[in-house]
Amino acid sequence: MVEARGVALDMVRALFFDVFGTLVDWRSSIARESKALLAPLGHDVDWSAFADAWRDEYQPAMEEVRSGRRPFVRLDDLHRENLDRILPRFKLDKLADETRASLTSIWHRLDAWPDVQKGMRRLYAKYRLAPVSNGNISIMVDLARHNDFSWDTVLGAEIARDYKPNPAAYLASARALDLAPSACMMVAAHSSDLAAAAKCGLKTAHVARPGEHGPGSGETKPSVPVDFAARDICDLADMLKA
Amino acid sequence: MVEARGVALDMVRALFFDVFGTLVDWRSSIARESKALLAPLGHDVDWSAFADAWRDEYQPAMEEVRSGRRPFVRLDDLHRENLDRILPRFKLDKLADETRASLTSIWHRLDAWPDVQKGMRRLYAKYRLAPVSNGNISIMVDLARHNDFSWDTVLGAEIARDYKPNPAAYLASARALDLAPSACMMVAAHSSDLAAAAKCGLKTAHVARPGEHGPGSGETKPSVPVDFAARDICDLADMLKA
Repeated sequence: MVEARGVALDMVRALFFDVFGTLVDWRSSIARESKALLAPLGHDVDWSAFADAWRDEYQPAMEEVRSGRRPFVRLDDLHRENLDRILPRFKLDKLADETRASLTSIWHRLDAWPDVQKGMRRLYAKYRLAPVSNGNISIMVDLARHNDFSWDTVLGAEIARDYKPNPAAYLASARALDLAPSACMMVAAHSSDLAAAAKCGLKTAHVARPGEHGPGSGETKPSVPVDFAARDICDLADMLKA
Repeated sequence: MVEARGVALDMVRALFFDVFGTLVDWRSSIARESKALLAPLGHDVDWSAFADAWRDEYQPAMEEVRSGRRPFVRLDDLHRENLDRILPRFKLDKLADETRASLTSIWHRLDAWPDVQKGMRRLYAKYRLAPVSNGNISIMVDLARHNDFSWDTVLGAEIARDYKPNPAAYLASARALDLAPSACMMVAAHSSDLAAAAKCGLKTAHVARPGEHGPGSGETKPSVPVDFAARDICDLADMLKA
């Protein structure tokens, strides 16, 4: 596909990054930090299962907004509601409000995969870079500080007031940079995100994150047509000659 | 005032920057770049007067939006309309559409005052930094690239969909960072901006730009009470011990 669309790819001016799973390892970070917070309080659960359960509430919660059944609400608030929903399953329903707030804030300090910082620096020299994530602006700002990400501004759900994969999230982000959708490339570890971006006219790059949902559980390659399929962000920088 | 409000000032987490005039010298840049574009086409006008005339249309154009008489429209579009309005006065009403677009794009590559880059780097080490400008996101992204500004994300008018000094511009920016207004400090060379920010509960820092509107024509000090009055951004970094 690269050859066939070569000329169009020369027109790419901005890279839009999915963040949870693509740039940061939410599962290990949530498991580790939740344990660090709750174990000293005497709690002991399967921390990876806890992270998975929390994340499993993510899509259904956003679907309420995407479907129009609920006005836009920021991901921090959805994370907190989702936490409240899963705590009884882990016999953690006695947790104080303050502890719940501390748990929710862990989403602001997730660790990046090891290739990200180096790869992004290279890409920054050639392209405008922005997160186009479902995370709200303050999560993105905090993750960038925590991991030394290089990007030009935060775009995505909070700017669009809608969640991916609804078209508004991609199109409002392109518009904010005065760019046609075809001048933007969505970079994600999730084929569904890339399929939706492509439908809006964006170029697409898949990044393999074979361990996103635990060992052997993550997308090793795209299940939809994409412009690039990379092993990681440095590999993508190689492909884009950045 | 610093002493009296010392404790509250320790709570400041983010600095919000006005941009046109405070961080960048719009007048010299517009005059120089307009001349560079139009002189080779055979045009000769008073380029500083041209810059002033263009800027003079800025507040009336935004007032249409602030007053609710007109839905929110981005500053790039207002700049273009304002240009069309002033061209006849300079006998430039025959300029092609493409040339008008090139002139309008000059607002994306204005030069910073000489103290800004160094001062911002120091402030970045201690605070979250964001432009809270009436410029749209793409102008801010381009100005940051052009001048190597350090900030965490672009906030301000396009996020709020309202123009300063309306309260929404300040309050939506604080909310985007999950901060109380009192945890944010507006930094500006314009007393009117600071007065409006203070009314919303933000802390305030004035930066002197005695030449903003030409030699001897700019605010050398604030005409309203502020928390800090600095000579430039490096001086502000000194005052904030950054």
